[in-house]
Amino acid sequence: MKNSKLIETAIEALTCLPGVGPKSAQRMIYSLLKNNRHGGINLSQVLKQAMTEVSNCSVCQTYTENEICEICLNKDRLATGTVCVVENPSDIIAVERTGQFDGRYFVLHGNLSPIDGISPEDLKIDILENQLKSGNISEVILATSSTIHGEATALFISEICKKYKIQSTRIAYGIPIGGELDLVDGSTLIHAFSGRKTY
Amino acid sequence: MKNSKLIETAIEALTCLPGVGPKSAQRMIYSLLKNNRHGGINLSQVLKQAMTEVSNCSVCQTYTENEICEICLNKDRLATGTVCVVENPSDIIAVERTGQFDGRYFVLHGNLSPIDGISPEDLKIDILENQLKSGNISEVILATSSTIHGEATALFISEICKKYKIQSTRIAYGIPIGGELDLVDGSTLIHAFSGRKTY
Repeated sequence: MKNSKLIETAIEALTCLPGVGPKSAQRMIYSLLKNNRHGGINLSQVLKQAMTEVSNCSVCQTYTENEICEICLNKDRLATGTVCVVENPSDIIAVERTGQFDGRYFVLHGNLSPIDGISPEDLKIDILENQLKSGNISEVILATSSTIHGEATALFISEICKKYKIQSTRIAYGIPIGGELDLVDGSTLIHAFSGRKTY
Repeated sequence: MKNSKLIETAIEALTCLPGVGPKSAQRMIYSLLKNNRHGGINLSQVLKQAMTEVSNCSVCQTYTENEICEICLNKDRLATGTVCVVENPSDIIAVERTGQFDGRYFVLHGNLSPIDGISPEDLKIDILENQLKSGNISEVILATSSTIHGEATALFISEICKKYKIQSTRIAYGIPIGGELDLVDGSTLIHAFSGRKTY
């Protein structure tokens, strides 16, 4: 004998969340039923709204419920002429947290991967190319990850930049601040050496 | 600059789930938006239904969307005359998984705790007493936890059982199977010694 049918259905539905298995889903549903039904109903409403109303910013492709996201609406950011190309919307949050970048973003929502059938069109690189063509952009910072697919995507976009004579730069890879040399993996160390600067 | 307003609201709503902080909530919402909007909408619907329709079984007080839960509807289980008193509905799942108990349950949804204002009425012990009064019950197994409050609750219910001349038993506490003696805490060891049996 298990939980009642409705509770089992709810447990199964909760496992669509990443990192939530049947055991933690059961704990979640019991916790909501016992202590926070109001929170559960609120979650259900907000979740439905987010799933149906959030789409992509027509300029930078990040997630937003508006036509254009807040960052792209900011004219000061547009005026810098700098675009940072990232893989995921969460990367924007990470860069914004540093408070050091004042340009715009472009979100690819993935990386080029011919084997998985992910083409430049899937990443909306044509939209990015149109923006480069417009002539308002002077530098493209490529902040895709340092995986094979991330490198290939960066290279692909840098080729497009060349076509329009726009400077493209890649963010630096090396030893993280506070990281110890003997704990860092080999390929990071190679990057750190090849990317060394003169004092 | 942060996420869009709707996404921030959704992240905040998700943190009502136990063990989910802002960071994992953000990961969840991005994952749903990217890969599984259908799952998110389904979760929202099922969650709302569970929060509004699940109430307590009128007999054993466990969570169910029906008037009486499946276990209480089972006449064979009623006929055993045994009631296992547990703290939480999840305890029923744990006992059922053993497949060794064929009686009914009674869920307290907590323990007596005068300091927190939790009285016998809050735990519906009056409903349990009515069931004991009816004369169909021959044994009450007290499976509340071994905390001070759990022990006090077990003692309180055992006193009621005495009043109706019904046998009340407490589940055994001791070394868990596979547990090593030197890794077990002192109070468990004391329970294990005092609860020893003759071969």
